[in-house]
Amino acid sequence: MSANPYETDLDRNPANYQPLTPLAHLERAALIHPDHVAIIHGNLRVNYASFLERSRRLANALSDLGISGGDTVSVMLSNTPAMLEAHHGVPMTGAVLHSINTRLDAQAIAFQLDHAECKVLIVDREFSGVVAEALALAEMRPTVIDYDDTEYPEDAPFPKGERIGTLDYDDFVSAGSADFNRTVPVDEWDSVSLNYTSGTTGNPKGVVYHHRGAALMGYANVIASGMGRHPVYLWTLPMFHCNGWCFPWTLGVVGGTHVCLRWVRAKAMYDAIADHGVTHLCGAPIVMSTLLNAPDDEKRDFSHTVSFNTAAAPPPEAVLAGMADAGFEVVHLYGLTETYGPAVVNEWKDQWSELELGARTTKKARQGVRYPALEDLAVMNPDTMEKVPADGETIGEVMFRGNIVMKGYLKNPAASDEAFRGGWFHSGDLGVMHPDGYLQLKDRSKDIIISGGENISSIEVEDALFKHPAIMAAAVVARPDDKWGETPCAFVELRPGHTLTEAEVIEHCRGLLARFKCPRTVIFHEVPKTSTGKIQKFLLRNEAKTLGSSS
Amino acid sequence: MSANPYETDLDRNPANYQPLTPLAHLERAALIHPDHVAIIHGNLRVNYASFLERSRRLANALSDLGISGGDTVSVMLSNTPAMLEAHHGVPMTGAVLHSINTRLDAQAIAFQLDHAECKVLIVDREFSGVVAEALALAEMRPTVIDYDDTEYPEDAPFPKGERIGTLDYDDFVSAGSADFNRTVPVDEWDSVSLNYTSGTTGNPKGVVYHHRGAALMGYANVIASGMGRHPVYLWTLPMFHCNGWCFPWTLGVVGGTHVCLRWVRAKAMYDAIADHGVTHLCGAPIVMSTLLNAPDDEKRDFSHTVSFNTAAAPPPEAVLAGMADAGFEVVHLYGLTETYGPAVVNEWKDQWSELELGARTTKKARQGVRYPALEDLAVMNPDTMEKVPADGETIGEVMFRGNIVMKGYLKNPAASDEAFRGGWFHSGDLGVMHPDGYLQLKDRSKDIIISGGENISSIEVEDALFKHPAIMAAAVVARPDDKWGETPCAFVELRPGHTLTEAEVIEHCRGLLARFKCPRTVIFHEVPKTSTGKIQKFLLRNEAKTLGSSS
Repeated sequence: MSANPYETDLDRNPANYQPLTPLAHLERAALIHPDHVAIIHGNLRVNYASFLERSRRLANALSDLGISGGDTVSVMLSNTPAMLEAHHGVPMTGAVLHSINTRLDAQAIAFQLDHAECKVLIVDREFSGVVAEALALAEMRPTVIDYDDTEYPEDAPFPKGERIGTLDYDDFVSAGSADFNRTVPVDEWDSVSLNYTSGTTGNPKGVVYHHRGAALMGYANVIASGMGRHPVYLWTLPMFHCNGWCFPWTLGVVGGTHVCLRWVRAKAMYDAIADHGVTHLCGAPIVMSTLLNAPDDEKRDFSHTVSFNTAAAPPPEAVLAGMADAGFEVVHLYGLTETYGPAVVNEWKDQWSELELGARTTKKARQGVRYPALEDLAVMNPDTMEKVPADGETIGEVMFRGNIVMKGYLKNPAASDEAFRGGWFHSGDLGVMHPDGYLQLKDRSKDIIISGGENISSIEVEDALFKHPAIMAAAVVARPDDKWGETPCAFVELRPGHTLTEAEVIEHCRGLLARFKCPRTVIFHEVPKTSTGKIQKFLLRNEAKTLGSSS
Repeated sequence: MSANPYETDLDRNPANYQPLTPLAHLERAALIHPDHVAIIHGNLRVNYASFLERSRRLANALSDLGISGGDTVSVMLSNTPAMLEAHHGVPMTGAVLHSINTRLDAQAIAFQLDHAECKVLIVDREFSGVVAEALALAEMRPTVIDYDDTEYPEDAPFPKGERIGTLDYDDFVSAGSADFNRTVPVDEWDSVSLNYTSGTTGNPKGVVYHHRGAALMGYANVIASGMGRHPVYLWTLPMFHCNGWCFPWTLGVVGGTHVCLRWVRAKAMYDAIADHGVTHLCGAPIVMSTLLNAPDDEKRDFSHTVSFNTAAAPPPEAVLAGMADAGFEVVHLYGLTETYGPAVVNEWKDQWSELELGARTTKKARQGVRYPALEDLAVMNPDTMEKVPADGETIGEVMFRGNIVMKGYLKNPAASDEAFRGGWFHSGDLGVMHPDGYLQLKDRSKDIIISGGENISSIEVEDALFKHPAIMAAAVVARPDDKWGETPCAFVELRPGHTLTEAEVIEHCRGLLARFKCPRTVIFHEVPKTSTGKIQKFLLRNEAKTLGSSS
């Protein structure tokens, strides 16, 4: 057998092969646009040259502490410049960036610090109280660095806590050398970040991302979001959430401006849009509600259209209409921590814009198609690993395959093997594939309510509830029932100044749903949400259980 | 030493690692936009579903012929649907697409067919005459497939030639099965295409691209060209030239429409812009001249701005001004066959738009900064491999490093090693680095003449001259040309007692070379040499410049 000439003397070398890394995006932006504003934070303006320089100083300072490849640097930070610098400075050393959800309690933080084997911990003073508690519980003894945000507002809803570290972040960065010669990643498969999932059962799992996926997300986000040159991005999505869907790395691709935001408040968002010309922001539906329900004196006029990427739940009809009126274009995304954030996008078709609102909402409610950098997306029977028919009805498990799927769960090969069974990432989400190739989620398996042997999608019931003008938020879970097994139980949050009775809610649903799908129970109180705006259904499920049988 | 947890149990598997390939771009477009027009060619409209289906049928038909991984499929095709299908159908089989410059003579084509070990050859009937000659000269005996373009214009400047193959392209594709399960690439390093350069010395070199680079160019082109969703791309750049700068694969990323064009004529270009809403096109400066110098009755009004990517030579002031008036925005790119086409882009800064025309032209004349997917670009001293000072004055060799640099030269390890010396790709072009990090070419690799965007090796022309018995010495350099950029200018020293006219010299060359390579100017005088007998080309270059434009 003669050698294939295309595989002979045509090997990789440093000239024709370089590991993909998101660090290259910032470097390129700093080269091309050194004077362009990279970061806006309060009165602070950081240009791209300084952004890169400070990230390099951070990397050198961390290296001086002994941090190198495979070490973990943890951060408990808001959407501030330090968080953006950490996304670059930490990986530059070869270390892995571990971002902690800032709303976690001390015990959960302590678990993560130990499991991640944290060597250095950077803490915003807003969170020093809970982190001090966590450090008392944890076994690891990281070097702690306080981040004292100079732009911390005077009228902060939460006061700054005490310093708890041995180093000050700005001093630490300033002491680092500006001379820098990046040697990482050695391999694009090298780990870049670690994010713990908020699993509903057992301990959280540590999702590991690699440089390759984070670099490709830079291109994919730009393309999926339709970003032109120099977008202005408002940080409403927490950067600790899937690394802010990789947007901290993405903006370098197009020389964009990060507008930091410590707390998601309507006035601050409108001010940023009007004053800084924000073009893009991301967030859960709760952020859209905050914008729409803002008092008039907090709203600002703006003449451009702002692109709003939302995920976590399909945007309800009233919200879509309100957002359009308010000058926002809503893009519906879907993904998981395990898929670097968004991995599915509701690619909008021009002809759908001509549909009436109800039909438009139905199209917009579908999660959509694979992200530009995802290789494949399927709805499969997890037992047979065969795709379900694309009929919009047959429910299966949503599965992913491609370069924006995690490396696996840290120190948890059993969970990784289970998640990657059969060569696909199993999301645990249930959905259908429509004939046109668009995915629609039907529910997480535990969100399906089984009543009298019939499956009821809690999402479908929630959609009906959202159509009532007095309802601001709603969640539906299963309530145990001696006769039917389970019945739908609705938790409803009303708009200020509105009242509704249980009977009125049920009557409203009967106009839209089959009788067996309508809630049997309606409870009026605030719907609990996670820090990222995801409804905490497990709390509601527990509450529904304590009610006992519904018949 | 304990194992690094980030390198333990976090390996690649089919769920989290898939080889990058440009084939995924078309597949995604066909999934999302099946009904969107992918190809316009004369009266023909091909939607994305059909484009993918025909590419798959082509792949199956080729597989039925025994084509598989590592085989070469050569094409001699214009910018037609068949060429777009070949860019996808051929790599789907694992084979390598070899695109032949349609302006080459029979001998050059024969050399390529043999060197590439061509197994199947697809030939447009426009070129069947020269290809028949080539096949008579070549040792390889490929299966020849005639492409009989149904949209071949009635008023064609070149008539269709005879059929020379044993198969008809459309019959061949139709006979292929539509069932298809892509299994390639096995590795993203697998070869996807082969393009021969007209090197300065010896035989042309076969530049090999891989799937990884072609896939990344899909993202990079979209970002560098500022393409939104559904761009309309006019095929003025030959697809045989660096695979049309990878745009045949790029448009799938954003669901764009290819507008085919067999001959670059002003009327056809304006009609496409006005009738199909062309948003982007690429080409050498000659294409801009053709647009600007068109007779008024061939021009059409259009209200949108068209983005024109140009390369090969900096756009002159008058052309830039004329293009702006005519509704075009000019983007200046630079690259080589070895860098997948454009690897450098003149990233335009907003503040430069406020400069007056002369200063704007100076900024626009610079080649620019690294392309989004290129890792590094430098001007270096090739002896020391150190970067020259970024002072805008110190000349060095332009070098590239990254994932859009070729695998190497096919069956030419010596040339590959030389090109990749020191871990950088040596372009052979000379340039300076400005203080702001923008590259400017100072001198093309001295022996290359760029005429109408095509490289002409001066040595190849000199070789032809030397074959004339009356010619004792000869040297060929570039002469400036308003229309073509440059044309070959020959300096000829006759043997004592012989006489020759300019017309006789040109006629002699036409017997040996493609028409565009033949000298446009012949000057008879002694060829200046150094004491060691080396021809002093810089003197001749100066002399040619003083002649002014050759047309």
